[in-house]
Amino acid sequence: MSEKIRVTMYNEYLEELHDANCAKVYPKGLHGAIGDYLAKNPEIEFTAVTMEMPNCGFTDELLNNTDVLLWWGHGHHGEVPDEVANKVQRRVLNGMGFVPLHSAHMSKPFMRLMGTSCRLHWCDDEKEVMWTVTPSHPIAKDVPEYFVIDSEEMYGEPFGIPNPDEVVFIGWFNHGSVFRSGVTFRRGNGKIFYFQPGHNSNPGYYNPHVLKIIENAIYWAKPDFIVPNREDYFGKDVIKI
Amino acid sequence: MSEKIRVTMYNEYLEELHDANCAKVYPKGLHGAIGDYLAKNPEIEFTAVTMEMPNCGFTDELLNNTDVLLWWGHGHHGEVPDEVANKVQRRVLNGMGFVPLHSAHMSKPFMRLMGTSCRLHWCDDEKEVMWTVTPSHPIAKDVPEYFVIDSEEMYGEPFGIPNPDEVVFIGWFNHGSVFRSGVTFRRGNGKIFYFQPGHNSNPGYYNPHVLKIIENAIYWAKPDFIVPNREDYFGKDVIKI
Amino acid sequence: MSEKIRVTMYNEYLEELHDANCAKVYPKGLHGAIGDYLAKNPEIEFTAVTMEMPNCGFTDELLNNTDVLLWWGHGHHGEVPDEVANKVQRRVLNGMGFVPLHSAHMSKPFMRLMGTSCRLHWCDDEKEVMWTVTPSHPIAKDVPEYFVIDSEEMYGEPFGIPNPDEVVFIGWFNHGSVFRSGVTFRRGNGKIFYFQPGHNSNPGYYNPHVLKIIENAIYWAKPDFIVPNREDYFGKDVIKI
Amino acid sequence: MSEKIRVTMYNEYLEELHDANCAKVYPKGLHGAIGDYLAKNPEIEFTAVTMEMPNCGFTDELLNNTDVLLWWGHGHHGEVPDEVANKVQRRVLNGMGFVPLHSAHMSKPFMRLMGTSCRLHWCDDEKEVMWTVTPSHPIAKDVPEYFVIDSEEMYGEPFGIPNPDEVVFIGWFNHGSVFRSGVTFRRGNGKIFYFQPGHNSNPGYYNPHVLKIIENAIYWAKPDFIVPNREDYFGKDVIKI
Repeated sequence: MSEKIRVTMYNEYLEELHDANCAKVYPKGLHGAIGDYLAKNPEIEFTAVTMEMPNCGFTDELLNNTDVLLWWGHGHHGEVPDEVANKVQRRVLNGMGFVPLHSAHMSKPFMRLMGTSCRLHWCDDEKEVMWTVTPSHPIAKDVPEYFVIDSEEMYGEPFGIPNPDEVVFIGWFNHGSVFRSGVTFRRGNGKIFYFQPGHNSNPGYYNPHVLKIIENAIYWAKPDFIVPNREDYFGKDVIKI
Repeated sequence: MSEKIRVTMYNEYLEELHDANCAKVYPKGLHGAIGDYLAKNPEIEFTAVTMEMPNCGFTDELLNNTDVLLWWGHGHHGEVPDEVANKVQRRVLNGMGFVPLHSAHMSKPFMRLMGTSCRLHWCDDEKEVMWTVTPSHPIAKDVPEYFVIDSEEMYGEPFGIPNPDEVVFIGWFNHGSVFRSGVTFRRGNGKIFYFQPGHNSNPGYYNPHVLKIIENAIYWAKPDFIVPNREDYFGKDVIKI
Repeated sequence: MSEKIRVTMYNEYLEELHDANCAKVYPKGLHGAIGDYLAKNPEIEFTAVTMEMPNCGFTDELLNNTDVLLWWGHGHHGEVPDEVANKVQRRVLNGMGFVPLHSAHMSKPFMRLMGTSCRLHWCDDEKEVMWTVTPSHPIAKDVPEYFVIDSEEMYGEPFGIPNPDEVVFIGWFNHGSVFRSGVTFRRGNGKIFYFQPGHNSNPGYYNPHVLKIIENAIYWAKPDFIVPNREDYFGKDVIKI
Repeated sequence: MSEKIRVTMYNEYLEELHDANCAKVYPKGLHGAIGDYLAKNPEIEFTAVTMEMPNCGFTDELLNNTDVLLWWGHGHHGEVPDEVANKVQRRVLNGMGFVPLHSAHMSKPFMRLMGTSCRLHWCDDEKEVMWTVTPSHPIAKDVPEYFVIDSEEMYGEPFGIPNPDEVVFIGWFNHGSVFRSGVTFRRGNGKIFYFQPGHNSNPGYYNPHVLKIIENAIYWAKPDFIVPNREDYFGKDVIKI
């Protein structure tokens, strides 16, 4: 590939600024940690936007020139304008890859794309063991059969999502929970990968396996090609998408 | 089952009133044709509501006492209040069966539950041959391997829906199109069956196989049981749906 | 339903006879424990067959009069005659329900129906927490959100099966593993539910939730109706299944 | 990719030799037509084997050095040795791509991998319209929304396969049938794409869209990477695949 993959990350970026625990773990923000890692890959061009920017940082130009959108939000999902959420949904249906991370399970774009409650159980920090359930999946490339995250916010089943196309990872938490931690969905022309780790007071986004999975997901989710407009079979009265 | 299945049908019911062609085919409305058929089944209790009623006829009491909701809308999807659409979506996630018919592929509740464009090709009337692709499915009980609908509005692929859980029927149209005409989705605790036939100027809702399929879908989509509230595993900090 | 559901259980039934540990836990065999539970249900007619019977107990008459087949085998899968395995596979494709239990993941009929390795990790006894992932599924009726099995042989991912139609239960094991413990597949006209608990030196088949799930699976897997022979659309040269 | 994709095609290659109609359409055999097309792609290395070779041409060395296997068989499926079929199945589970073409729906390797009847309706030559149902799928790249095959053997639903992971193409036949003509399955580490066109007395394998789809399927089905052996989590008693 001669052209770079244009990755945009939306990060709510409030708790890293205003909560001492989060600020200590992620002094440059979650997008800083992920951006620093992706910067080492010359095939990726990384842009970060945050909630405090006008329109959460989303201009039409940025969105139309994003191949894969990472999304991290937590306590302020409701403050993302509906118009932004609707445009993101539409861009995914038109082919943009979408990788909601951790608490983005309740973000407006993900909930709109799923159509379900997207709820789950959650609890304090626990040890997590992440199991690779579909080891031949591109998102699992160079990921071991299992790896341990020493401390992560627990997310537990039942997870209120539609039946995923593929379950790539299942997480185990030491107090007794399980979670479909890495799941894929095709929606319209776009590919979606939800990935569970990444609470902002835990150092998950420094874990090399977590970072590798996000990088793999970017390659997997980027549009394979532009789907052309429909042709007209009957020459009359045919709606085009 | 000693208790009846409580079926509600929402019908837009404007074109049967104001368009001579539709009025001729469905003098009692689409809900009249389907209601007359279902009235023969003593296990079903049928209620119809229409767009011109306050709130499209949906009181909370009606919605909370509906086991399966049939939905037919066409040119006035946008006039269904968002609040009604949201309540229907939530009821489906809580277990109510949902059977969107024909042009309800663009209705607000179906689009919210799918999260996709739900678009398709369409064209003038054509002969349709409906094929049973999953003959052992409960919705295909007593339905032949194929049946012919002499005249039906053509709907054609690609159909902008998520990958269905099951494809029960595929339609063939004489000018060259195909369509996944009967497809199922589980969303939350609810079961959804989209079924393509039923343009309001065609007599599809007098076809015995079409009616049988709708009746079967009611039995299939009704909630099997009430899913109880979650228990608390950890005794702390666990969100309940 | 006026007619009873005809349930047959194949049990290898060697270790309960020849291994003191197993004999102590299941003095009447695994089929005895499950049969005693199902005997309380007047809608079920239960028959057990074992490996030491001629043809593993499978006459054509028995197989043709079985609605749902439970299968438990362990160390002697290879000794089940190919002809028996093939007949079971064909009966499932024709509509018989099939519920392979625990180590039947490597049984000939299940492996033929899946087409994959069906392998998994396994280990000594551990505490298992079983989570209900799809709480509205008929197999989860009256099953709590989670339940604990004090001691069960560990089965772990990756599990070498095709992507299931539905994941109903996921198991957690205290040493760090997870397993898709309850999964469904439609194959031909038949419905399959694989269920993980039930090592023959552990008392899993006395656990009320495990037994309830097996009973629910019987109701779910029984054929809804007999799928009739195909009709002939073209009047010539059409293969019939 | 610097290394070539190693494609092997098994062709029964009897009717092109012994049936005048087939010989006229495919003087170099079906593998000759497909091989001539693929020869233009410098990234693909193409090898053909036929039924009359020892072991149908399959040495272990060839099979172990095949990235994607195309398979065309018709009237002599039963003469493929079981050992060859089993080795092909195992190679697919270990990661080899597999593209069964047309009448290979009843080939031993495909039937073993599916576990179902794989049957269908069939009939004499008809006009086919092939619809792209999942236009963003890599196998649909550069394929129009629909294309016409003037004359092809009709294949009709119901098609006795497991619910596919993805339906990429659906075919329409002028006498009234429909068929899920292009479907994908992941089995173990391997990817499978079944594609319906290609009767040996019809010129389908000269159709540029059919050829493009086969070429796309090769890129899609080739293993993304070698899945390494499992690690050992518990240090004891853990079975490795």
